[in-house]
Amino acid sequence: MKKILAIDAGGTKISYAVVDESGKFLNEIKTVPTPKTIEELIKVFKNIISENENNIDITAFATAGAVNINNTKVDSSTPNMPEGYNQLDFTSLSTKPVFVENDANCAAWAEYKIGAAKGEENTITITLGTGVGGGFIIDGRLLRGKSGRGGEVGSMKINGQKRICTCHRYDCWESYASGTGLKKTAEEIAQTDIFKSSIFNTKTPQDVTTYDIIEGLNKNDEYSKTVFNIWKQDLITGLINITNIFDPESIIISGGMGKFIDTEEIQNAINSEIVVSPVKIKLAKAGNYSGMIGCALLACEKK
Amino acid sequence: MKKILAIDAGGTKISYAVVDESGKFLNEIKTVPTPKTIEELIKVFKNIISENENNIDITAFATAGAVNINNTKVDSSTPNMPEGYNQLDFTSLSTKPVFVENDANCAAWAEYKIGAAKGEENTITITLGTGVGGGFIIDGRLLRGKSGRGGEVGSMKINGQKRICTCHRYDCWESYASGTGLKKTAEEIAQTDIFKSSIFNTKTPQDVTTYDIIEGLNKNDEYSKTVFNIWKQDLITGLINITNIFDPESIIISGGMGKFIDTEEIQNAINSEIVVSPVKIKLAKAGNYSGMIGCALLACEKK
Repeated sequence: MKKILAIDAGGTKISYAVVDESGKFLNEIKTVPTPKTIEELIKVFKNIISENENNIDITAFATAGAVNINNTKVDSSTPNMPEGYNQLDFTSLSTKPVFVENDANCAAWAEYKIGAAKGEENTITITLGTGVGGGFIIDGRLLRGKSGRGGEVGSMKINGQKRICTCHRYDCWESYASGTGLKKTAEEIAQTDIFKSSIFNTKTPQDVTTYDIIEGLNKNDEYSKTVFNIWKQDLITGLINITNIFDPESIIISGGMGKFIDTEEIQNAINSEIVVSPVKIKLAKAGNYSGMIGCALLACEKK
Repeated sequence: MKKILAIDAGGTKISYAVVDESGKFLNEIKTVPTPKTIEELIKVFKNIISENENNIDITAFATAGAVNINNTKVDSSTPNMPEGYNQLDFTSLSTKPVFVENDANCAAWAEYKIGAAKGEENTITITLGTGVGGGFIIDGRLLRGKSGRGGEVGSMKINGQKRICTCHRYDCWESYASGTGLKKTAEEIAQTDIFKSSIFNTKTPQDVTTYDIIEGLNKNDEYSKTVFNIWKQDLITGLINITNIFDPESIIISGGMGKFIDTEEIQNAINSEIVVSPVKIKLAKAGNYSGMIGCALLACEKK
């Protein structure tokens, strides 16, 4: 059975471990902070690889950013990674075959192969965190597009309120349905009358946090409920769009915001509005290291 | 070389001809009106088939409505077809193998195989007519979804103005970007001051037609230009969403509204806003009978 060194390279930390081709971890997962320069980052990658290379068949990366069509290089500039990251030829780092894939795609693949979407050939994993990411499986194949950059569903425009996204464009779904989006909605609604009777009414609007809103929900705070319901509706709008386009068996919700939603309620709301057949909404099951599992499994299919 | 009886079954007319597996028409295309009852429709289909059956290898239908995953039956009720259409087992109509596919999917396949998107493995055909339809080719395969109903991009919600669609839902892309959408925008803008100086200002707002707006554009009418620009922006919003999700090589525009757009202008507007790599926008080239060509070609690949 093949052994894969799986490296998850994110903006704040790099995690790695050896994984077998069934997705099982063969040693302890280790984590190091992501360096600030490309030179230091390459050094970290090389250290990780030399530590494990004698013991493995493939080196696989799950990474932030759009990966090129040959799965060897990050094709776009990614604001969270050191400058020059998109110049790095990953194949130069290891004497073993190297595989690189976008982290959202890897997470979706892990859900499809061993997680909440196991056995479902048409399934989409949506990650709700600081932003909104998507990985799309169609007839058992990953949607990558002509250049490997496909699946950028966080940039789908909804709503038309002219809300500015962190990417400087208007009305991206992620500017509404992410954690950042919830905070922005909280700020906007804090400028209306309903905020006056809120338990958070001593805060300035831009200081209300996502956690405040969740706390407020539990304390039956009307302002918090209003904010959360708007956020939920914006989430549902995007999920309806995805369902109508892809007619998937399931949409898997992962990421930090996932724990705040009632999947059955969301599922019912979607299924009452779509023109395709009903979809299942489920929480992710492949765990926090699904990116590492996914890149390992994908690397085995590819090589 | 295989011969296919290709039948395009739409809400107002049924067209048919024998096509070879290269997409060439082998006899004259004939057209009959679509009957009002399912019994009469079945009779029409049977007449068409018996007229040609001795001379062909496959009977193929391009039809309105979502086709089931086995390509044998329309799975949804389609308002433009006789009641009971979704009960019809198409395989019962012919002694030859029968293939059925959604007409938008067939049109996209024709563009991919012999039309404007020839050789482009990731391409989407958007039909702008009374409604908005979509056919999606991903890595050379048709996007059909779990049940065959995928690709319903006309139902993608944009804009958030709470415009009611003909399907009774809110804010479907097709309620903005179709011919019907242009007429609705014309009606709305006719209720603002700019209408007073329009060449159409003697009309009641709901009587302004799509053709009026096009005529007004040519006559430099400010009201018509405003209406058309709003319509164009709504069209572009949806095309940006599709491009960000699919990262396609091209989007092919077909349908009656296609002739009113400047593809280069639309392409530049999209490419200045997307987060994936640039897309080409082109007009359809496979002709008015692309549905028949597409179903014939798809039937040959399938059988």
